[in-house]
Amino acid sequence: MKRILFLIISILFILGTAQAQNGKRIPAKGFAIDSADGHFHQHEFTRHAVGDNDILIEILYAGICHSDLHAAWDEQQPQGNFATYPMIPGHEIAGRVVQIGKNVTKFNVGDFAGVGCMVNSCGHCNSCDIHKEQFCLNGTTFTYNCPDKYHDNEISMGGYSNNIVVSENFGIKIPANADIKRVAPLLCAGVTPWSVIQFSNVKNGDKVAVVGYGGLGHMAVQYMVSLGADVSIFDITEEKRSDALRMGALKYININNENELKGLNNSFDFIVTTVPFDYEILPYVQMLKMGGEMAILGLPANSTINIANLALGASQRKVYGSLIGGIKETQKMLDYSVKNNIYPEVEIIRADAQEIDKAYRNVSDGKVKFRYVIDMSTLK
Amino acid sequence: MKRILFLIISILFILGTAQAQNGKRIPAKGFAIDSADGHFHQHEFTRHAVGDNDILIEILYAGICHSDLHAAWDEQQPQGNFATYPMIPGHEIAGRVVQIGKNVTKFNVGDFAGVGCMVNSCGHCNSCDIHKEQFCLNGTTFTYNCPDKYHDNEISMGGYSNNIVVSENFGIKIPANADIKRVAPLLCAGVTPWSVIQFSNVKNGDKVAVVGYGGLGHMAVQYMVSLGADVSIFDITEEKRSDALRMGALKYININNENELKGLNNSFDFIVTTVPFDYEILPYVQMLKMGGEMAILGLPANSTINIANLALGASQRKVYGSLIGGIKETQKMLDYSVKNNIYPEVEIIRADAQEIDKAYRNVSDGKVKFRYVIDMSTLK
Repeated sequence: MKRILFLIISILFILGTAQAQNGKRIPAKGFAIDSADGHFHQHEFTRHAVGDNDILIEILYAGICHSDLHAAWDEQQPQGNFATYPMIPGHEIAGRVVQIGKNVTKFNVGDFAGVGCMVNSCGHCNSCDIHKEQFCLNGTTFTYNCPDKYHDNEISMGGYSNNIVVSENFGIKIPANADIKRVAPLLCAGVTPWSVIQFSNVKNGDKVAVVGYGGLGHMAVQYMVSLGADVSIFDITEEKRSDALRMGALKYININNENELKGLNNSFDFIVTTVPFDYEILPYVQMLKMGGEMAILGLPANSTINIANLALGASQRKVYGSLIGGIKETQKMLDYSVKNNIYPEVEIIRADAQEIDKAYRNVSDGKVKFRYVIDMSTLK
Repeated sequence: MKRILFLIISILFILGTAQAQNGKRIPAKGFAIDSADGHFHQHEFTRHAVGDNDILIEILYAGICHSDLHAAWDEQQPQGNFATYPMIPGHEIAGRVVQIGKNVTKFNVGDFAGVGCMVNSCGHCNSCDIHKEQFCLNGTTFTYNCPDKYHDNEISMGGYSNNIVVSENFGIKIPANADIKRVAPLLCAGVTPWSVIQFSNVKNGDKVAVVGYGGLGHMAVQYMVSLGADVSIFDITEEKRSDALRMGALKYININNENELKGLNNSFDFIVTTVPFDYEILPYVQMLKMGGEMAILGLPANSTINIANLALGASQRKVYGSLIGGIKETQKMLDYSVKNNIYPEVEIIRADAQEIDKAYRNVSDGKVKFRYVIDMSTLK
């Protein structure tokens, strides 16, 4: 009798394990693009099953980041030719947990959860050890357009969709009191400037500048204003001048107005540039005080610095680039943002292929102010 | 009687002042070049008179710096076309004080004195106030090939000559126990790396690298070894491997040997590059640990960094250029060097035009190890 009981328990256990490991793939639908000059269209697909350490998120909102355009239109630089189609972009994701794996402790069903630019990493290399999973030495899985080595190298599919499955370690806890429709862009446009503001130790009273007052830029402004820094903004339009002052900037500089550019050399402790188009960088480096730092967040394809010029014309001003942020700092950023009521300014659009196409054109033309967010609940 | 006495005293005073202000120009001779493709030849000229705050130095030794070649051959980058001929290069000068102005307090006749890359600045701008006279906002006078705004815009003449007149503020005190024949290169090849080693706060136990093991590079190695850092050296030849280990480096990497370049990413806290030729910089930036810093001291004409690559491929590694050092830090460097017996390795050549031509060819061909110094006492 004991033997039979043991046998039954064993069979049930094996079946249970098999179900956890081989559980059913999750049906999903979203908006895909099929070529660099294509248009978005609805696309049905499946996601890998919810593993023991995974959560399934019903996506409520997905932000549109300028880098989505670069990816979708295969302009990712400088290597290029990165796109795998059909591609579903989207790495600014806010939603609600609808299923959890049996080992999950961080989330409960019903919680708000966010996903940013990555969905997995090895967890045990030197980069993961210091909470910089975006530089995992064994390969980060980015949220879309990336072979997922932890799931048979299937190409990851992003947030312009109704759901996503992600390791709980890569889910960001969104406080219940967050303004959920404005949270999604924080997962990229928030953490990317947040990370460099921490890295360069921007503090109360520092004289700082933001070059490029778009999605990342307007978050950088808000964080640095909240820290008590004296913030100047550089952009190419008059239309955003009143926004800049409303957000607490002391100065707005329209770079098309030569007079506004005078007398700025040796002025700033810190400059963050988010410009995604080619531009001359050295004049901004020269606006740093000696010992000041410039963080480059935008990814213009062909902008370069001549290093002899850097030494001769901008001595002892430090320049560095940066890429998103780790999971731990993303959580810290989100908690800080909600607590201090810091959110992106968003324009909500319907989950509709033509709406997304139109939003892309506007982002490309610099007509967005400041972030489009797709309301995925309107997906038909 | 009193009136006559007053008159006599007044006349004497006026004559004295006139002599101080309009004192006789100082005859000088040295080695000049007359065109970008010319050869050196002996050249006689005069220097401005010794003012009340000036010292006249009899030059004993003058170093040959790679940037002398760039200047003499009008390759100064990136603007180019900088040369005024006849040009007497030389900004690594060690000699003995033979005359002082009446207000001079820093030097006595007979003292050793050094002169580096600059001979004057305004003394009261924001840069001068923080002892960075090389960035004087009202115009630094560099030691040669530079209009001297403090002396009727005469073109400054450098150290390949028998004497120099300089404001005492720009004279560096050389301790009497210094090994005078090896001091001259410290004034540029010493202070330039010294400045960035201090700026980046290199300390005991840091893992650091020197790219380009020449004049500046071998000084950088010695300073960082003396601070207790773990020093690696990158160069293109086998010939310097034993020198590197003799100077206390732990590792010498011949970049022509691919195997030696493997596994170096994320290794270094600090890298200083002194390479004066065009090269790919990003692979070295990638060898920095996150948060590490790279100081660019060499001035290759066309080497650039793509800033998107910097962000994507070398995130949060800081890059900056630097240019010589201020007078205060030059003095500190010289005192430290003499105290710790840190000197350049020099090859002394005669004060002879053909010898200088030959030295230039060797420097250009990378055949110098590590610094030529002209013994100006052999000038005929």
